[in-house]
Amino acid sequence: MTPLSLTTMAIYLDNAATTWPKPESVYREVDNTLRFGGANPGRGGHQLALAASRLVFDAREAVAELFGVRNEDRVAFTSSATEAINVALFGILRPGDRVVTSSMEHNAVARPLRVLQDRGVQVIKVSADRRGFVDPAAIREACSEKTRMVVLSHCSNVTGTLQPIEAIGPWLRREGILFLVDAAQSAGIFSIDVEAMGIDLLAAPGHKGLLGPQGTGFLYAREGLNPVPLIYGGTGGNSQSDLPPEQMPERLESGTLNTPGLAGLKAGIDFIRKEGIAAIRARETELLEHLLCALRGIPEVELYGPLEPHLHGGAVSFNLAGRDPAEVGFLLDHEHGILCRVGLHCAPDAHRTIGTFPRGTVRVSPGYFNTLDEIEHLVAAVAALAAHPPA
Amino acid sequence: MTPLSLTTMAIYLDNAATTWPKPESVYREVDNTLRFGGANPGRGGHQLALAASRLVFDAREAVAELFGVRNEDRVAFTSSATEAINVALFGILRPGDRVVTSSMEHNAVARPLRVLQDRGVQVIKVSADRRGFVDPAAIREACSEKTRMVVLSHCSNVTGTLQPIEAIGPWLRREGILFLVDAAQSAGIFSIDVEAMGIDLLAAPGHKGLLGPQGTGFLYAREGLNPVPLIYGGTGGNSQSDLPPEQMPERLESGTLNTPGLAGLKAGIDFIRKEGIAAIRARETELLEHLLCALRGIPEVELYGPLEPHLHGGAVSFNLAGRDPAEVGFLLDHEHGILCRVGLHCAPDAHRTIGTFPRGTVRVSPGYFNTLDEIEHLVAAVAALAAHPPA
Repeated sequence: MTPLSLTTMAIYLDNAATTWPKPESVYREVDNTLRFGGANPGRGGHQLALAASRLVFDAREAVAELFGVRNEDRVAFTSSATEAINVALFGILRPGDRVVTSSMEHNAVARPLRVLQDRGVQVIKVSADRRGFVDPAAIREACSEKTRMVVLSHCSNVTGTLQPIEAIGPWLRREGILFLVDAAQSAGIFSIDVEAMGIDLLAAPGHKGLLGPQGTGFLYAREGLNPVPLIYGGTGGNSQSDLPPEQMPERLESGTLNTPGLAGLKAGIDFIRKEGIAAIRARETELLEHLLCALRGIPEVELYGPLEPHLHGGAVSFNLAGRDPAEVGFLLDHEHGILCRVGLHCAPDAHRTIGTFPRGTVRVSPGYFNTLDEIEHLVAAVAALAAHPPA
Repeated sequence: MTPLSLTTMAIYLDNAATTWPKPESVYREVDNTLRFGGANPGRGGHQLALAASRLVFDAREAVAELFGVRNEDRVAFTSSATEAINVALFGILRPGDRVVTSSMEHNAVARPLRVLQDRGVQVIKVSADRRGFVDPAAIREACSEKTRMVVLSHCSNVTGTLQPIEAIGPWLRREGILFLVDAAQSAGIFSIDVEAMGIDLLAAPGHKGLLGPQGTGFLYAREGLNPVPLIYGGTGGNSQSDLPPEQMPERLESGTLNTPGLAGLKAGIDFIRKEGIAAIRARETELLEHLLCALRGIPEVELYGPLEPHLHGGAVSFNLAGRDPAEVGFLLDHEHGILCRVGLHCAPDAHRTIGTFPRGTVRVSPGYFNTLDEIEHLVAAVAALAAHPPA
């Protein structure tokens, strides 16, 4: 297979796009499920279909436990975090509603909100500071008019800025304002407890920090909060009716689920729980501190995002003064075998906030399986590129 | 893994729910892609992301070639056929539109249409006959008033009835009426050519006849027909705008795609093309003829669906006179190790049509990898159950 030969020697630092590699158990569970457990969950009561249902249930329970969800039925599986966010936004907001969000959001939040704005939802964008932080006081201020929902990413995919959601959620809950958290960059890396943090709706992908395969994600919706579905179809139950089922999670899970993917997601979460989320975060913090400190030592490097490693998630954005990030990324890839991502990272507002629109940044995002040696290699490569600008 | 030990000796006859097993190459490609090609397609220009984009492109091209689609950009990947059908219906129909469908549809069609009906779309259901056939003349008759779209399943998931879409599509095209075909039970088993059959919108799952993994599907939309998306988010391109991209397939592919699943789907389609769709159909017809003939020989068996094997897809529905299909299915599973599906199969209207609502039927659905021996085993089991009703 081509990618293998291409990348044998490459250093993967694009974990904010998707984590790679995955734990061995993830590969194994996906393969096992395809080979031996490949029936359709919830469709028919035969033993293989029941085993598939059990796999899905186990994955649901694993997600619920990791995020402090008491009733796993409140977790609906989706094909991506993007789908989960869209279900939460389109499924709850109605014309006339007012929603508060930030200038740090990914297009998975910004684009559906733009569409909803065109349909009569009032969208207020709170500006973050240059490091990407959203001030809880600014959120409270923005909510001084009657507000239906606040939507925030927990951790920026551009700057790695960690938002103080634990300072925002409980206040919102007291005020009766819904809180939707996009945990695309934080799930599996930072502890999230939906109860303690006052989160009403939590969306996350399976294939990033949760270490599962692509094609998986979920939406948590707290008890009593039942989004109108975007997609209707067979759910395996209640077949006699042309009305879709009311109950969670079925109401949001029409069509055949990605059982092998969910078995892999379960394996990813099992791995996280075995290693411990604190150990994972500690390891990533070690890599980050090393990376941030070394990049600061290169005079040509313009570094964005938080200065404090404990408020810094996995994405690190920088530029080389006067250089096009696309060129820097190309050279990192082709001359140094380092795989990272350049440009706007599907988050143009975040770049406007930190002053890097429209050229964007070079983004490196270490993961749990990266090594200090690999970070050293990257830093040396950046230093070499800085020292030798193109003629 | 539990399912393996449970099912080592089982006979899988539930291919209408999901095909199983898959070709060895499907398992291998999914695993290879997860292990070695696991980057995020279209996100960043590094070599691993480009390789992932290439995998997705190859899968898109394979789908296009199999269904006679000239421009592969008209094929958008979805997580299921259900999502594809929903995008086609919600993305095109507007209040005041009139849509004609049949009494044989799966809930993946019936439920979104019911929701659209509540939003002001006029839905006309043409009744099929007791064998499940929809008369093209009845469709034409139903379209005598100004009609926006006709929606038909190509092959019933309850009775296996193959609809004469090639006699309907070209007429609809001449009349300027859109034609949406649900190919959930036919894609990969019957030849489908969107041009020759006058199909404007084609929805199919990846995990049934196309032999790919669950979590995959696609929607074909003909040139100039651009459904309004259900889901908005990052697409990897056009990042600077909070407006979603206009062009296909990006407009319908927000969020990270299921690359390993699509690599598996490509392998499934490659397998089909190598074996030849005619050879696959011939093999399945041989199994079907044997099955139908043998079941007709058991006096207690009430057999539904077409009498002609060449008009019969993979799903075979029957009952034992006076017996509950759930009980029959349970005994087939637990006493004979035969895995099939009982009940309404998410298609209540189809059961109303053939007179089996609400108890449903026992459905057996052979696939390409079943053997005549396995069919014999099923027939013997049915005969044994018929001969020994419960006390």
